[in-house]
Amino acid sequence: MRLSQFHLNTTKETPADAEIVSHQLMLRAGLIRRLGAGLYTWTPLGLRVLRNVETVVREEMDRAGALEVLMPSIQPKELWQETGRWEKFGGQLLKIKDRKQADYVYGPTHEEVITDFARQELRSYKQLPLNFYQIQTKFRDEIRPRFGVMRAREFLMKDAYSFHLTPDCLARTYQAMYDAYSRVFTRLGLRFRAVNADTGAIGGSASHEFHVLADSGEDAIAFSDGSDYAANIEMAEALPLYPARAPAAEPMTEVATPTQTTCETVAELLGLPLERTVKTVALMSEHGFTLALVRGDHAVNEIKLAKLPGLADYRLANEDEIAEYLGAQPGFLGPVGTRKPLHVITDRTVALMADFVVGANRDGFHLRGVNWGRDLPEPALVADIRNVVEGDPSPDGKGTLSIARGIEVGHVFQLGQKYADAMKATVLDANGKAQVMFMGCYGIGVSRIVAAAIEQNFDANGIRWPAAMAPWQVAVCVINPKDDAAVNAYAERLYAALSAKGLSVCLDDRGLRPGAMFGDIELIGIPHRVVVSDRGLQAGTLEYRQRSADASENLTESELLARLGV
Amino acid sequence: MRLSQFHLNTTKETPADAEIVSHQLMLRAGLIRRLGAGLYTWTPLGLRVLRNVETVVREEMDRAGALEVLMPSIQPKELWQETGRWEKFGGQLLKIKDRKQADYVYGPTHEEVITDFARQELRSYKQLPLNFYQIQTKFRDEIRPRFGVMRAREFLMKDAYSFHLTPDCLARTYQAMYDAYSRVFTRLGLRFRAVNADTGAIGGSASHEFHVLADSGEDAIAFSDGSDYAANIEMAEALPLYPARAPAAEPMTEVATPTQTTCETVAELLGLPLERTVKTVALMSEHGFTLALVRGDHAVNEIKLAKLPGLADYRLANEDEIAEYLGAQPGFLGPVGTRKPLHVITDRTVALMADFVVGANRDGFHLRGVNWGRDLPEPALVADIRNVVEGDPSPDGKGTLSIARGIEVGHVFQLGQKYADAMKATVLDANGKAQVMFMGCYGIGVSRIVAAAIEQNFDANGIRWPAAMAPWQVAVCVINPKDDAAVNAYAERLYAALSAKGLSVCLDDRGLRPGAMFGDIELIGIPHRVVVSDRGLQAGTLEYRQRSADASENLTESELLARLGV
Repeated sequence: MRLSQFHLNTTKETPADAEIVSHQLMLRAGLIRRLGAGLYTWTPLGLRVLRNVETVVREEMDRAGALEVLMPSIQPKELWQETGRWEKFGGQLLKIKDRKQADYVYGPTHEEVITDFARQELRSYKQLPLNFYQIQTKFRDEIRPRFGVMRAREFLMKDAYSFHLTPDCLARTYQAMYDAYSRVFTRLGLRFRAVNADTGAIGGSASHEFHVLADSGEDAIAFSDGSDYAANIEMAEALPLYPARAPAAEPMTEVATPTQTTCETVAELLGLPLERTVKTVALMSEHGFTLALVRGDHAVNEIKLAKLPGLADYRLANEDEIAEYLGAQPGFLGPVGTRKPLHVITDRTVALMADFVVGANRDGFHLRGVNWGRDLPEPALVADIRNVVEGDPSPDGKGTLSIARGIEVGHVFQLGQKYADAMKATVLDANGKAQVMFMGCYGIGVSRIVAAAIEQNFDANGIRWPAAMAPWQVAVCVINPKDDAAVNAYAERLYAALSAKGLSVCLDDRGLRPGAMFGDIELIGIPHRVVVSDRGLQAGTLEYRQRSADASENLTESELLARLGV
Repeated sequence: MRLSQFHLNTTKETPADAEIVSHQLMLRAGLIRRLGAGLYTWTPLGLRVLRNVETVVREEMDRAGALEVLMPSIQPKELWQETGRWEKFGGQLLKIKDRKQADYVYGPTHEEVITDFARQELRSYKQLPLNFYQIQTKFRDEIRPRFGVMRAREFLMKDAYSFHLTPDCLARTYQAMYDAYSRVFTRLGLRFRAVNADTGAIGGSASHEFHVLADSGEDAIAFSDGSDYAANIEMAEALPLYPARAPAAEPMTEVATPTQTTCETVAELLGLPLERTVKTVALMSEHGFTLALVRGDHAVNEIKLAKLPGLADYRLANEDEIAEYLGAQPGFLGPVGTRKPLHVITDRTVALMADFVVGANRDGFHLRGVNWGRDLPEPALVADIRNVVEGDPSPDGKGTLSIARGIEVGHVFQLGQKYADAMKATVLDANGKAQVMFMGCYGIGVSRIVAAAIEQNFDANGIRWPAAMAPWQVAVCVINPKDDAAVNAYAERLYAALSAKGLSVCLDDRGLRPGAMFGDIELIGIPHRVVVSDRGLQAGTLEYRQRSADASENLTESELLARLGV
C-alpha cells in the first residue's frame, strides 16, 4: 500500500476524554473514530488490524473443526422469553420495536438463536457433535461505555456454540476449544493466562477466562510461579498459611484502643505485626447473626462466602443488629464474650493462629493473647473465605502465587443443558429416545483484543504491534527532498521486491519530513522500518530499525532481507 | 472438507411459503434458515457461498483503490436530522431507543455516518479523492419482507462513498467504480446489464443500476440488440416510430362505439390495427386540465410525464373535471371538440400519426380519420411520455430494443453535494477557501447476489453455481458399501491431491447410497462431481460429471486432472 493513496490521520495530542493508553493511542494513531457513546468507526488503518485478528481467530476455529455460520443481529423476543432472559438479562439488552410493533433485541449474544437453529436442524445423535461459530457484531447497552473499544456498546465478537449427546463429548470439545484459544492468543503474540473462572450468571459447570496480562486490566488474576495454575482471584483457593497452630504463649488481656478501629492501627499501637490480628465481619445469613473471621491483612471473598451453606443471600449486619448481639460498635468487634449465641465462620488461616488480637466487643478496647480452645471454643466452621494474596502458596502445591491484572478477551463455558432444556432442543439417541443436548459456548472479544494488545505493547512513541496484528510488517520510508528519480525508483523497487516475498509492506511516499514520517510510523506501530535516502544509496546501505530496538542500523539490501527473514 | 464432519441438511420437499425458485432452492439446499420475518441465518454451506461473493467484491474494491472501513450499525438520530432523513426516510428506517431514551437507527445505509466521518477527518483538498467502503450488515424494515434473502430485512451490503473537490473528479471515480462493478459481476459469472436509472429519492445527477437478468426479476430493463445501450424501462428514451407523418387519406367521421371503451375493443370493432388508435389520459397539472396522448398500444410513463415543466405534481383528473372540460365519460375522450380550452401533451409517435382514432367526447362514440392540422391544431407540446416496448428502435440509433427482467444487485450514484451540503462537509481548496465536497455512493447487495445467481442458474435438480460462487469446486463422492479400505484410501488420496492443487474440494464420505448422495451434490450445485467406487477402480477410471452436462464420463485420473484444469 502506498501511503499517499491511503488515509492516515495521526495526531500528537492526547485526547482529553481517553483515560487508558490503548484508547489514547487508538485515537492518536487514527485506528478508530467515535460516532457516539460506545460506538466507533474502524478506519482503514484500524480495520487492517482488526481483520488480522479476525483471520487468526477464523483459522484456529476452522482448524478446531468449528463450522462458520452467520446469524442475524436482530432476534425475536419470543426466543428470549423461552429462556427467561427477556426479563433477566437486564439493561444491557437493547430492545427494539419494528414498524408492526413486534418486539426484538439486538443480540448481545446468540445462545437463543443457535439453540433454536439446532433444534430445527438436528434430529439424530449421529449428527453430533457439532460446533457452530460466527464472527459478528454484537450490541450491549452498557450504562457507562468507556475506554474506547475496550468497553464499547457495539463490538465484534467471535461466538461459538457446541452441541453434544453426552457431557463427556462436551468436555472433549471444551478442551479442543481451550487449546484453540491458546493457539489464537499465542499466534497473536500476546502474554496471556487461561484462568479458572466463576461461571456466574451464565450458569453451567466449567469455565475458563482468557486474560491478556496488562496493568490496566479490570480483573485480578492469581497465578503460580511454579506451575500452570492460574485463576481469577475470585476463584483462587486460599490455603492455610501455617502448618499447625503454635501453643498459647500469652494470657488474654484487654487493652485500651480508644481510636483504633482497624487492624492496622491496633497492630501499630500494640507494636505487633498485622499478621497477629483478626478481622471480624458481622453478617446476617440463614443462620441468623454470623461472624466471619479473617486475618488482619486479608480480605473477605464475598463469592466464596456466598457459596457456603446458608450464606447464599447473606448481607452485612446493620449497627442495631451488631449492638444487639455484640454490644459494641464496628471497629471493636470480636468472637469472644458475645451477648447472644451466634454463628462463626473462621478462615483456614485464622483457625491455626495463636495469641491473636480481636475486638473486645466493648467500645475502645481490644483483646490480645487470644487463643482457641482456651478463651473461646475451637472453631466450629473452618472454611476458605478470603482472597489469595501475593506470596500465598499455590493451591496445587507447586510454587507461590503472584497477582497480576488482566483484560478478559476470551471465555469458554460448559453450559450443560441449561439452554437446550429451556428450549427443548433434543435429538434422538441410539435407542430412538429424545435426549436434551449438552452445550458449550465459547467467546472471543475480537475488537477488544486490539485494545488489549496495545495495553501490553506500547512505549512513549506509540504502539508496538505484535507481528501478527500489525497493519503492515514493514514500512519503506522515502526521504527525497530533491525528488531524485533514482531514490524514488529504488524505493519502488524495494517495495515491490519485499511485497513479492509475501511481506505486508507500506511505502511511505507522502513526502513528509523525516521527523514527521518516523513519528507516524512509530505511532502506528509498524514492526520494521526501512529508510531509503540519497545519502544511504550513495553509501550502499539502507537504514533499518526494529520498532522495539534502541537504535537504527545501516544494512545492505541483502542484510536487510536476511533480517526480515525473506 | 469432509462432509461427514460438515453440516449438510437438504430436503426434497419444496417449502410451501417460498414463492420464487431461489428461495425454494436456498431452503432445500440448506443455505439459509428463517429466524423471523425477513431474518435469516446463513448455514455453514450458505456462508461459504456468501463469503465467495464477499471476497470477489472486496478484491475489486481494493483494486479500484477504495479503502475498507467498518462503521457502526447503530447510528445516532442527530445525524439523520441534519439531512432531514429522520423524517423523510419512511417506515423502512428502524428507530431504536437505548436505555437512556436516546434515539438511534439501525443503519439502512451510511451516507450520514460517512459524511460525519469525512467532515472530521478531511481538512484539505490534498487528501482527496478518497473512497471508503465497507461490507456490513444493514436493516431495512420492509413492510412485506419476502423471497428469502432477495428482499430480507437484515442483509449484507457493500456500500462505498467517495469524496471529491470537483464534479470532474467525482465522474472519474464514478467510472472507476462502474468498471469495478462490471468486473465483480463478470468474475461471479453472472449475465448482467448496467442500466441508466432514475436517481429517484436519493437525488444526484448520474446513476446506473446493475441488474442480473432473470425472468423473476422485479425490474424491467430495455436493452439494444445492436449496442451496449441498456436502461431501466422508466428511463429508456422512446423515439418516434415514424420517420414522417403520412398525408391525410380519410375524412373525419363519428362512429358509434356503444360499449367500446378501450383502444383494443374500438380497433376490433372498426377492423383497424391497434396502432391506428390514440389513448387519451386526462390529468390535472399546473397548467390546469391536461390531456396526455399516446398511441393505443403504448403506456404512459409517469416518471417521464412528471419531469415535464408544470407536471411535477400532476394527478389523474376526476370524473367531474372530465365532464366539465370534455363533456363525456372516460372511454370516449379525445382532443377534438373539447368544451373548454385545455393543455395537450402529445407523444412523439402520436404527433406523426395520420387518420387515427380518438374518443369523440360524446358517450358511445369515437372519431376515425382524425388528422393533425385539419381536424385539430398541430400539436403544441410534443414529448417522450411513453414506455418503450419490445422492438422499438434503440435510442442510440443502433439496433432495436428488447425488454428483459432484472434483479437489481448494484447501484452507483453521483450524489453531488446533497449530503455534504446538508452536513457542512468541507475541505480547504488550493486558495485556502472552504469548499463543500462532491460525493458518490456505490452499493452492492452482497446477500441478494446469492439469490440472484440462483434465479439465473438452476435446473430441475437444483442449483448450478457459477464457478466463483460454488461452496466447493469439486465433490469427491465415495461409493463403498463394503467399506473397502482400498476405495477409502484412493478417495482420501484423490481428495488430498486435488486440494493440494488449490482446488476447493469436498469429500462426500457420509456413506450415503449413490442416489441420495448425487441428489445432494446436484441440489447444492457443485460444478464438478467425481465418483470413486470399487467398480471404477477395477476399471482404472473415475466417473466424472460436470454439473450442467447431460451425462457422466469415465476418465482416468490424469484425464480428470486435465478436465479440472490442474
